[in-house]
Amino acid sequence: MTSEFNIINKYLSPLSAPEVGAFGLTDDAAVINPTNNKSLILTKDAIVEDVHFLAGTSPENIAHRLIGSNLSDISAMGAKPTYYMIAAFLNNSVDEAWIKEFTETLAKYNQKYNISLIGGDTVKTNNSLSFSLTMFGEIEKNNELRRNGAQDGDAIFVSGTIGDAALGLKSLIGEITTTESSKIFLENRYYIPQPRISLGNKLLGIATSAIDISDGLLADLGHICECSNLGANIYKDKIPLSNQTNELSLKNSELFEIIATGGDDYELLFTVRKDDESYINQLSQELDLRLTKIGKMTTKTNKVTLFDKRNDEINFSKQGYIHKI
Amino acid sequence: MTSEFNIINKYLSPLSAPEVGAFGLTDDAAVINPTNNKSLILTKDAIVEDVHFLAGTSPENIAHRLIGSNLSDISAMGAKPTYYMIAAFLNNSVDEAWIKEFTETLAKYNQKYNISLIGGDTVKTNNSLSFSLTMFGEIEKNNELRRNGAQDGDAIFVSGTIGDAALGLKSLIGEITTTESSKIFLENRYYIPQPRISLGNKLLGIATSAIDISDGLLADLGHICECSNLGANIYKDKIPLSNQTNELSLKNSELFEIIATGGDDYELLFTVRKDDESYINQLSQELDLRLTKIGKMTTKTNKVTLFDKRNDEINFSKQGYIHKI
Repeated sequence: MTSEFNIINKYLSPLSAPEVGAFGLTDDAAVINPTNNKSLILTKDAIVEDVHFLAGTSPENIAHRLIGSNLSDISAMGAKPTYYMIAAFLNNSVDEAWIKEFTETLAKYNQKYNISLIGGDTVKTNNSLSFSLTMFGEIEKNNELRRNGAQDGDAIFVSGTIGDAALGLKSLIGEITTTESSKIFLENRYYIPQPRISLGNKLLGIATSAIDISDGLLADLGHICECSNLGANIYKDKIPLSNQTNELSLKNSELFEIIATGGDDYELLFTVRKDDESYINQLSQELDLRLTKIGKMTTKTNKVTLFDKRNDEINFSKQGYIHKI
Repeated sequence: MTSEFNIINKYLSPLSAPEVGAFGLTDDAAVINPTNNKSLILTKDAIVEDVHFLAGTSPENIAHRLIGSNLSDISAMGAKPTYYMIAAFLNNSVDEAWIKEFTETLAKYNQKYNISLIGGDTVKTNNSLSFSLTMFGEIEKNNELRRNGAQDGDAIFVSGTIGDAALGLKSLIGEITTTESSKIFLENRYYIPQPRISLGNKLLGIATSAIDISDGLLADLGHICECSNLGANIYKDKIPLSNQTNELSLKNSELFEIIATGGDDYELLFTVRKDDESYINQLSQELDLRLTKIGKMTTKTNKVTLFDKRNDEINFSKQGYIHKI
């Protein structure tokens, strides 16, 4: 056994505690006992240097994006995360300090969400850094949130604020400049998704559809429209912006397209019946999380229409890059 | 949605049938209802062009290796495979014909093993082709085969023949030459693992330990020794060789080191109590599969000792490359 793999074992094996069925990652496979009568929720996202994160991104921030984006998928189903497996395609840029920082960040998620690493594979390559994570969650049977349940007239809500991550990326690649504090805020919003696990869980039995915003607000609302066979009308002025994003948007109105289509928000977009709108407002207070109504579902099929202050339709060149299978 | 992703959806979505919880791969995650009171077996292997397969390998053979190596891990626990998820890191060399051939091969495994694709992610990169597959299996609770249960005096068995895949790789890279029919046999043994699912299943309650041979016979027996805190004595003349491998080995005695340490055999290596040896011989007939006793476990800790015809110890420079975490 080379020292390289001893290092990986040293840092990865502890992440499998307390799940005894992971056997400290020593066997061919892990053995898990799912809770009887619960459904298992499974998602798998892959991220690649220079595609999903910039070359030179710290191991801490790579870990945040890798695990945060997958937890966000779990939140969109309303489930509770349980386990994860990682395939790591590493290269010569990775040393022991890198692995230490990467796994220390994973350990924080283990603690925060009560999850554990139950297996994976590590390969040394000459490629740019690539990772695939499989995340497991649990939920009561037949209870999960789906994309296809929205009804005509349902209110459309989003959590948190939109566009920060897309502007954070623009700042990182030097395409926009702002104050030092805004820069830090926006870049952290890009690097460190805030998966809305508690919100997703509270929406069970309430939301008629839900999705997490990874491809961009318009594209992901488009997915709900396609799956529900409906259209959606939303209003530019209702889209919740952070102070930092609002300030940049006021200075340069062209940034609004990036805000609405840039993606990587990892906020939840969901629909509820008109009668449940007041519950969502209560929930916002309970969770101390902005939940904003941005429009409603319509019968006009499969199309998202965005209106400005004067009720004129806004058209963009694109509705976000779709990279999911 | 770009045409590229329509192509992927066209070929990947059908692989999710009949699992309705995969939602035709349209949602953020899949929803699976595990069988009550069964354990879930989970494994994840990653493969990379130029590391695990040669550049220019056909999409059919990449699919064989990807899914076969993961099924082999499931067989080593004695479980029945159920679902899988794939992360595919593609590049410009992949066109529609490539995806068609790749997915047609996966479809054959779906049918043969009654498994289905329940999710994944596809990323276009500038890297060499890379894949990660997460395979799921089911088994009665507390029944799985492990690496750590071997006892002093247990007989050590292997399935099939050893070394064919390692010599197949040598043939592919032009380091050995042989007859055309031998070449085809050995190269297919490298490309197309034969996961021993039925054997693994039949060994439940019988084998005291089991592992699939991916790192090489000596290395993987070493894993059983470490996990069981025992040693092992095995005999060169007992190691089962195909006619093709035997012929090459007789011509060049140095090839034996490659046979015993080269790996990629994807045969099962397992231990049974002395009393169960006759059952294994019956099982060999029942499954029409060679099952050969190659030695026995000893109290000499953590060391695999290989003996020649004259009972002299054989020492190699290495015991196989260990790439698992």
